[in-house]
Amino acid sequence: MRANYTVRSNRPSPFRASHLALRGLWNLVWLLLFRPSPRFIHGWRRLLLRLFGATVGRGVRIYPSTRVWGPWNLTLGEYAVLGPDVDCYCVAPIEIGVQSTISQYCYLCAATHDFESPDFRLIARPIVIRDQVWLCADVFVGPGVTIAEGTVVGARSSVFSDLPAWKVCVGSPAKARRDRTVKTPNSDL
Amino acid sequence: MRANYTVRSNRPSPFRASHLALRGLWNLVWLLLFRPSPRFIHGWRRLLLRLFGATVGRGVRIYPSTRVWGPWNLTLGEYAVLGPDVDCYCVAPIEIGVQSTISQYCYLCAATHDFESPDFRLIARPIVIRDQVWLCADVFVGPGVTIAEGTVVGARSSVFSDLPAWKVCVGSPAKARRDRTVKTPNSDL
Amino acid sequence: MRANYTVRSNRPSPFRASHLALRGLWNLVWLLLFRPSPRFIHGWRRLLLRLFGATVGRGVRIYPSTRVWGPWNLTLGEYAVLGPDVDCYCVAPIEIGVQSTISQYCYLCAATHDFESPDFRLIARPIVIRDQVWLCADVFVGPGVTIAEGTVVGARSSVFSDLPAWKVCVGSPAKARRDRTVKTPNSDL
Repeated sequence: MRANYTVRSNRPSPFRASHLALRGLWNLVWLLLFRPSPRFIHGWRRLLLRLFGATVGRGVRIYPSTRVWGPWNLTLGEYAVLGPDVDCYCVAPIEIGVQSTISQYCYLCAATHDFESPDFRLIARPIVIRDQVWLCADVFVGPGVTIAEGTVVGARSSVFSDLPAWKVCVGSPAKARRDRTVKTPNSDL
Repeated sequence: MRANYTVRSNRPSPFRASHLALRGLWNLVWLLLFRPSPRFIHGWRRLLLRLFGATVGRGVRIYPSTRVWGPWNLTLGEYAVLGPDVDCYCVAPIEIGVQSTISQYCYLCAATHDFESPDFRLIARPIVIRDQVWLCADVFVGPGVTIAEGTVVGARSSVFSDLPAWKVCVGSPAKARRDRTVKTPNSDL
Repeated sequence: MRANYTVRSNRPSPFRASHLALRGLWNLVWLLLFRPSPRFIHGWRRLLLRLFGATVGRGVRIYPSTRVWGPWNLTLGEYAVLGPDVDCYCVAPIEIGVQSTISQYCYLCAATHDFESPDFRLIARPIVIRDQVWLCADVFVGPGVTIAEGTVVGARSSVFSDLPAWKVCVGSPAKARRDRTVKTPNSDL
């Protein structure tokens, strides 16, 4: 409990001017060239992300309404998908594996604040999503979380700590409920 | 658990070219004629939805920021309301009953994927919301769900299975907590 | 349970024409002057809110994508922050204290409906957020809620009833889990 405090000013930005200029430029590019681009030209948006430093595998699909805080912190494996209205808040690095799908309205949030420090210090921690993961619609992933290979996270779940491989996880906080078993093409016939 | 897999390409769209063209046209109409229309001309948006195959009762109110995946799969009873920023993801049919209100930020999600099939097959299942239902703000409704007459679902709840009639339901997954009893106009005085 | 009802019309708006005109004007100003303004000119947005009746302390930061239902019902203490995509649905008064931060995607919802009255009557109740509070990303706050000084509410939580001072609260409904202790600048070294 802290009954006495003095408010004198806004907290200064933890970022340098050159960084802020880069982000301003990226935001402008997003607004004018990325956001209005037709849905099906994923290659164009891959190009824009790469120009700003993202590592983007072939076949990646990113929708026009997907938001990316800073492409220089984003790594996308081959055939990964970032759906409509996904917010990729990559203040720290965010890595998404091969053929992983991040569905609409997901929010990958790689930053928080130390709310017990007097200056409300920014804390940025990487998010790692391995191969063949599926985050269903409107999943939240917090800073520092790793989701292991092949795991599915159910719609509207919130992930605050690491999840194991090849599980189906749901809830808030999301927990593993059962295994995910992908049938082979033959067994599926 | 599946340790070995080969990634060769994106999954092909499960939709035909003619369907994709229709959706492209609807998206264009939504962007140019629906989204920028003034809030109070609900009749204009009812007309646009009907032109694309929706069944829309009289008095229906749909806000300009409401999204509809494909109007041909949408049925709205008289005086139903779809509030601001509602996303009506009607990949399968979505039916909303007479005088039901879907409040702001609700997401009616009529599709998912079979995440245990090797091709991540699209699964679309109808959503049915009966008469006099109220979904409060930011409610999620999953594929295949029926919400029976008169039921209220509390703000921020997520509905993954059917809900009974004239109940108040909350939580994630949403469950019936108590009855909803609507006073008659006389008893209300 | 109410098996018989007659639907004859939409419910009339509970607001007067003069009020609706004022809100229309504010929406227009938001769309043309607030929403497209560059991120860093917070003073410009403070000015617009004050012109429409808001009480806004010095140093307040409000992002261009923040939505405000009606500025005349909004009070913001010094150095408060309303982040990107926050929705301030101040149908009743909303008060936010000194140096409190409302992070991205939060929804402060000061209205509901009496769903047991036959006319679905609008109920608007004030929201009070005291000084030094932090609502993390995507927190929902319902009508009539007071959050006491210094409390932190975790990402994605939903707040339906009052919260005590200097606690860390999470969940849906959000509950106090532990104390928040802010280190003094000296003890932090």
